[in-house]
Amino acid sequence: MEQIISSDFKLGILGGGQLGKMLTLAASNWDVNTYVLDPSDSCPSAPTCTKLVVGDFNCFSTVYDFGKNLDMITIEIENVNLDALIKLKSEGKKVYPCPKKLAIIKDKGLQKEFYEKNGFPTSKFQLFESENEIKDLVKSGAISLPFVQKLRKEGYDGKGVKIVKSQDDLNDLLVGKSLIEDKVEVYKELSVIVARSVNGEIKCFPLVEMEFNPTANLVEFLICPANVADSVEKKAEKLAIDLVEALEYEGILAVEMFLDKDDNILINEVAPRTHNSGHHTIESIFTSQYEQQLRAIFGFPLGSTELKIPSIMINVLGEPNYEGKVLYSGLMKCMEVDGAKFHIYGKKITKPYRKMGHITILDKDINKAREKAEFIKENLKVIA
Amino acid sequence: MEQIISSDFKLGILGGGQLGKMLTLAASNWDVNTYVLDPSDSCPSAPTCTKLVVGDFNCFSTVYDFGKNLDMITIEIENVNLDALIKLKSEGKKVYPCPKKLAIIKDKGLQKEFYEKNGFPTSKFQLFESENEIKDLVKSGAISLPFVQKLRKEGYDGKGVKIVKSQDDLNDLLVGKSLIEDKVEVYKELSVIVARSVNGEIKCFPLVEMEFNPTANLVEFLICPANVADSVEKKAEKLAIDLVEALEYEGILAVEMFLDKDDNILINEVAPRTHNSGHHTIESIFTSQYEQQLRAIFGFPLGSTELKIPSIMINVLGEPNYEGKVLYSGLMKCMEVDGAKFHIYGKKITKPYRKMGHITILDKDINKAREKAEFIKENLKVIA
Repeated sequence: MEQIISSDFKLGILGGGQLGKMLTLAASNWDVNTYVLDPSDSCPSAPTCTKLVVGDFNCFSTVYDFGKNLDMITIEIENVNLDALIKLKSEGKKVYPCPKKLAIIKDKGLQKEFYEKNGFPTSKFQLFESENEIKDLVKSGAISLPFVQKLRKEGYDGKGVKIVKSQDDLNDLLVGKSLIEDKVEVYKELSVIVARSVNGEIKCFPLVEMEFNPTANLVEFLICPANVADSVEKKAEKLAIDLVEALEYEGILAVEMFLDKDDNILINEVAPRTHNSGHHTIESIFTSQYEQQLRAIFGFPLGSTELKIPSIMINVLGEPNYEGKVLYSGLMKCMEVDGAKFHIYGKKITKPYRKMGHITILDKDINKAREKAEFIKENLKVIA
Repeated sequence: MEQIISSDFKLGILGGGQLGKMLTLAASNWDVNTYVLDPSDSCPSAPTCTKLVVGDFNCFSTVYDFGKNLDMITIEIENVNLDALIKLKSEGKKVYPCPKKLAIIKDKGLQKEFYEKNGFPTSKFQLFESENEIKDLVKSGAISLPFVQKLRKEGYDGKGVKIVKSQDDLNDLLVGKSLIEDKVEVYKELSVIVARSVNGEIKCFPLVEMEFNPTANLVEFLICPANVADSVEKKAEKLAIDLVEALEYEGILAVEMFLDKDDNILINEVAPRTHNSGHHTIESIFTSQYEQQLRAIFGFPLGSTELKIPSIMINVLGEPNYEGKVLYSGLMKCMEVDGAKFHIYGKKITKPYRKMGHITILDKDINKAREKAEFIKENLKVIA
């Protein structure tokens, strides 16, 4: 096998946001060279990668030129130019995950069709070319409220998703190709991060439970391990494993699920990369999702996903009414909290609800972790 | 307070070896800019720091010029130009640890005198201007064998230390200013890493036990927590705390100790920085020694030093008969070991006994951790 560690091996990463940053830090532990492509020269990965290439990861020639001198290419964001990745792969470059699988996942319509075709539980859905088709069908009575509209492409962090409850909501449907799906009565939102290595080895991280902030539609608390019955955890894990196998997927896949009151699980959607719901793995689990991604795509044995210490992860979001040069207010007080691990991504400009960092609170007693998380949530403010 | 995190604040680090690298990685988690001074442009910190300045950290003007444009200066190696640090400090720069304390610590003669004067237990010693003085006193019968000779300055990793047991050993005494001390009957070697913040807050990491390789005189296994009576742990901790208080020290101090069969503890020596015996803190403890160093010198509250999971740390050393471009043999097999965390420093050239990396093996059962450590020790070879 070629030597990847402490060598001239070059790993390319499309995207230099916080997920890219944490991946480069994991690579640094093994002395692996990372080349990052991002439109911003001050992206979070800029100071941590071996070399930053400034450019648009949606541009065919930029991605192709970036990749052709590297040994392997992976992603930290799925909205990238797939044609360039397909061409690179056809020329023998190692590209993980496979761009054809990315094509299925980054189009939520194709994703839902894949679930349906392969017998994976997901909410009922219909695909539409435009928002007007939806309006017409509501008018004709063929569709009834409420439902959830999702753009087929480029949604993230709650963007590209709309809950349609009233006639008023119909006036500002999302514009473009979309799908609508049944609004599920959600008891809990769950996430399983699963890794499948290029050798076919599979390991799941412990199930996590996500509590959303209803205003920002962003995760507020992420709790690991999830407070659900063992049978639910086993069922969720099996779903995630069956899914990566059905996809013949290589790398980290984040599988977001809905749990209802009767312990039924539906797949909500997946992300073909490391994920916000796996940040806590850095300190809470034996192997982080970032190290696991490297192990999976390098063909190394997957690392242990055993729990070290229970944790609650909170995102550090820009306050609603501030935009400008970032200031962290209340930081000292929060740094006193035992077991709070601070991750500041390095975005110099804060915006409302922008993800500026995250904090993982470790505590053997998950109730105490929760109290600490609430304290930090109240006291740490990202202002300008 | 000035903003350190996500700002233009510049932290300078003298030395870009593995300790510097791991400090820059901790700083990256908080988006703190790190400026590293090291003679080699391919030192371990080169790819991980914000900016590397290539230069000699023993040269007055190089260190002074490096420091004068930074906000704070710390070290990862003590053999640096102290006069430049003293001048920078006199001009109002923040320099931690204080260069006057460094002057005491980097001269093992002054260090021993400090212990004696302040009532800290340490082995009996005498100072000498040259090795010939020692020979004369042995000849005259004023000193008897065995004893340990230590150069007063610039010893590290077992270099600069000689155990003198026979008349033959007298023929190759270490050359230069040195001290000799009684050879202690060591039952165990212990280490306490203690942090004292610029605000005077003090926290110790759990006691660790070091097992040495007698050939290389380097740590072979580092075991955390140490297998000693609680009373020994408490006594060792108190010693470390009393010592940082007596020194009015700021930052991380590693206190190496000898334990005899009667549970007496003697201070062997200290290192005024993060230390090999604290690598395991990255995964085994709530706060790593690198993060703690930042907290201490930034004036942040110190982090929890609670144990997460017991661990054994092994150094990855260059094999005795190899020198050249590094190759890791047996790596895949060792990567299969559950809970083994690999740190490859990024030195491109291996030399006999050179520290190329370390591995921390985590296991709730310390006996299993030991079996795993032995397996890795046998199977991972650094060759060229």
